[in-house]
Amino acid sequence: MAEEEVKVFRTWSSPFPLRVIWALKLKGVEFDTEYEDLSNKSPLLLQYNPVHKKVPVLLHNGKPICESLVILEYVDETWKQFPLLPQDPHERAKARFWAKFGDDKEKEREEEIPRAMEILQHLEEELKGKKFFGGEKIGLVDLALGWLAYYLGIIEEVIGLKLIDQEKFPLLLQWIQEFSTAPIIQENWPPRDELIAKFDASREAALARGLK
Amino acid sequence: MAEEEVKVFRTWSSPFPLRVIWALKLKGVEFDTEYEDLSNKSPLLLQYNPVHKKVPVLLHNGKPICESLVILEYVDETWKQFPLLPQDPHERAKARFWAKFGDDKEKEREEEIPRAMEILQHLEEELKGKKFFGGEKIGLVDLALGWLAYYLGIIEEVIGLKLIDQEKFPLLLQWIQEFSTAPIIQENWPPRDELIAKFDASREAALARGLK
Repeated sequence: MAEEEVKVFRTWSSPFPLRVIWALKLKGVEFDTEYEDLSNKSPLLLQYNPVHKKVPVLLHNGKPICESLVILEYVDETWKQFPLLPQDPHERAKARFWAKFGDDKEKEREEEIPRAMEILQHLEEELKGKKFFGGEKIGLVDLALGWLAYYLGIIEEVIGLKLIDQEKFPLLLQWIQEFSTAPIIQENWPPRDELIAKFDASREAALARGLK
Repeated sequence: MAEEEVKVFRTWSSPFPLRVIWALKLKGVEFDTEYEDLSNKSPLLLQYNPVHKKVPVLLHNGKPICESLVILEYVDETWKQFPLLPQDPHERAKARFWAKFGDDKEKEREEEIPRAMEILQHLEEELKGKKFFGGEKIGLVDLALGWLAYYLGIIEEVIGLKLIDQEKFPLLLQWIQEFSTAPIIQENWPPRDELIAKFDASREAALARGLK
């Protein structure tokens, strides 16, 4: 264990490296952290992720792995404790479907509120009869969608609009509460005030550039 | 085997169901095919893929699996013969990275030629010392990127522009040749003339709408 090199390249504010941080911590794997400044990327980050030049990167015994969902699969295959995917192939496929779903959506424009509502409705359905997307325990889908649990509230605060109400999304709200306050998850969120300040600043910059 | 229900929902022209068709045939799994008309989707397709309402869908013993890359993982886990992913976890991660890479890119606008060239350059690098992306044998990455091997030539013909030349992309051209004429792959391409007619028609419609 002590001879094993495990390092995560992250930023303080980006939600996607968190998926990897959570996974490693849930599995009890020790690791080092390298904080990147995306406006001045380190030569190491460019070397390890020459294609996308993004965080997260996981470095394991000298070998880099890129893309948060690919890293989650790798972590789950490499450290077997606290499995993130179910055993049953069809259940695994469903988990991968929802993890990918979360991943695709993050690229769409936040402004499209009706489409966002439709997406949240699908997630609400998926939570029926379950505490987490993974069932009784946190799994890969929870880690993939977990950023919603914290960042959605922050986005709501910054834009001054409630997206998730109790009446329409009771299960999703319950999940946000359960997930965001779960052990390990709770301790690893970025500071809320600083995130709000960052989002406020980029929103103001966007407004100043004439975007809505 | 005879009691097993395996069915693929596809269209005659879309490249992404082909990934699934190839995978099943490479593994020697028998299956039925359901041809969909995307302008008039069947109630079954809407029932099995209510979120994206797209092909491919794999139906296995009554259970639907959606999203071509998720289906490839499922097929590889369910039918072990002719493995599509390498055994080594780091090699698996690299394969998943490139498969996802192919998947992300398909969503970008074809018009961005310089960016497309950069992407092809990454693929050219990845092929160094290998016959297929999967090594000596076709693997998951080949199936994910395989559409390029056929559709790229058709796009070149329709837009009247050579994208891949021998000097810049010798390995990629070699791979296109090897992959598109490999057993099983070769027999399952849609008819070339009909694809060209389809692309021509949609290009003309786009030009008529004033798009370039």
